[in-house]
Amino acid sequence: MLNIPPLDDLISLLGRLPGVGQRTATRYAFHILAEPEAFAAQLGQRLEALHASVRQCERCGNFTASEQCYVCRDPKRDSKLLCVVARVQDLLALERGGAYRGRYFVLHQLIAPLEGVGPDAMPVAAIRGLIETDQVSELILATPLSVDGEATALYLSECLANPGLHITRIASGIPQGGELEYTDHLTLEHALTTRRPL
Amino acid sequence: MLNIPPLDDLISLLGRLPGVGQRTATRYAFHILAEPEAFAAQLGQRLEALHASVRQCERCGNFTASEQCYVCRDPKRDSKLLCVVARVQDLLALERGGAYRGRYFVLHQLIAPLEGVGPDAMPVAAIRGLIETDQVSELILATPLSVDGEATALYLSECLANPGLHITRIASGIPQGGELEYTDHLTLEHALTTRRPL
Repeated sequence: MLNIPPLDDLISLLGRLPGVGQRTATRYAFHILAEPEAFAAQLGQRLEALHASVRQCERCGNFTASEQCYVCRDPKRDSKLLCVVARVQDLLALERGGAYRGRYFVLHQLIAPLEGVGPDAMPVAAIRGLIETDQVSELILATPLSVDGEATALYLSECLANPGLHITRIASGIPQGGELEYTDHLTLEHALTTRRPL
Repeated sequence: MLNIPPLDDLISLLGRLPGVGQRTATRYAFHILAEPEAFAAQLGQRLEALHASVRQCERCGNFTASEQCYVCRDPKRDSKLLCVVARVQDLLALERGGAYRGRYFVLHQLIAPLEGVGPDAMPVAAIRGLIETDQVSELILATPLSVDGEATALYLSECLANPGLHITRIASGIPQGGELEYTDHLTLEHALTTRRPL
């Protein structure tokens, strides 16, 4: 508390950002105050317009400023490949690698009974629609390797099972450059049981 | 670059906060997008109103929402004691301790020839005015122990020298709980030469 209401309000709002405590929020607030007024004004305007200017792609759920996202608009993408991810951040991580040339579907949530998200919340019909429209030949389930992510992948694979569709799960194992010594036993066990011929 | 202009703009602005890189800025942006729209709206409004709602206290330069800051408005403060600090953050650090019951003067800048700030930029007349109005008996120079802070303290002490005024400098030495072994040699030297009788 600085006893300066507009600054205290700003600091308490900034303190709601992930990993930002009172101290860092205060540092940000003083920095913004020391910068030219245009910086605070621009940042403020962008924030106020954020939810109105960013929407979900009508096709895949990725964030976009227009109807469809840049991946869905790109005609060079292989529409026969569809990769299901939990969050837009996961899509971005896959895009950074640049190895994947297919399209995506972003769930925005996983089956999480403890948080009240049941299987009914899964957009099975929307994914099935995409598979039919684009004549998808392979569906890659790239939800996280957590309990919720695994449950979601299993549920989707059961709902979408179809003789003409190859359903795969992103591989689990020891990261590239990783040491066996420092790998947890669940990962080691999984890496052993899913070993492949060389 | 996420190829989503409103998000990319927001991330590049958030990346201008101190200690925030592309990765952290992206994390903040996604967090704000996932929060209810009211959060982004409130934060945006506060930022836009920031420079207009926070001004400098007409008396001491502390940040305030009214004419005078809460320290200057507090009649219980000892107006005979005046402490000169470089930044509002320094004032807040002293206030957190709660040991000081006098008033402040915030310079907002130090003499820094390399940054083009000469002695002329020091608000000597304003400080002298406060000393006379409040009949200040002790002026505590609490600018930082850096080259610029020391130069500023020296300059102010020379300008404001007056037989009726006791001018002091905040002490330099080994921090409480500190080890001599890990103290830099300049601090050690200073702590030795300014040793005091027990």
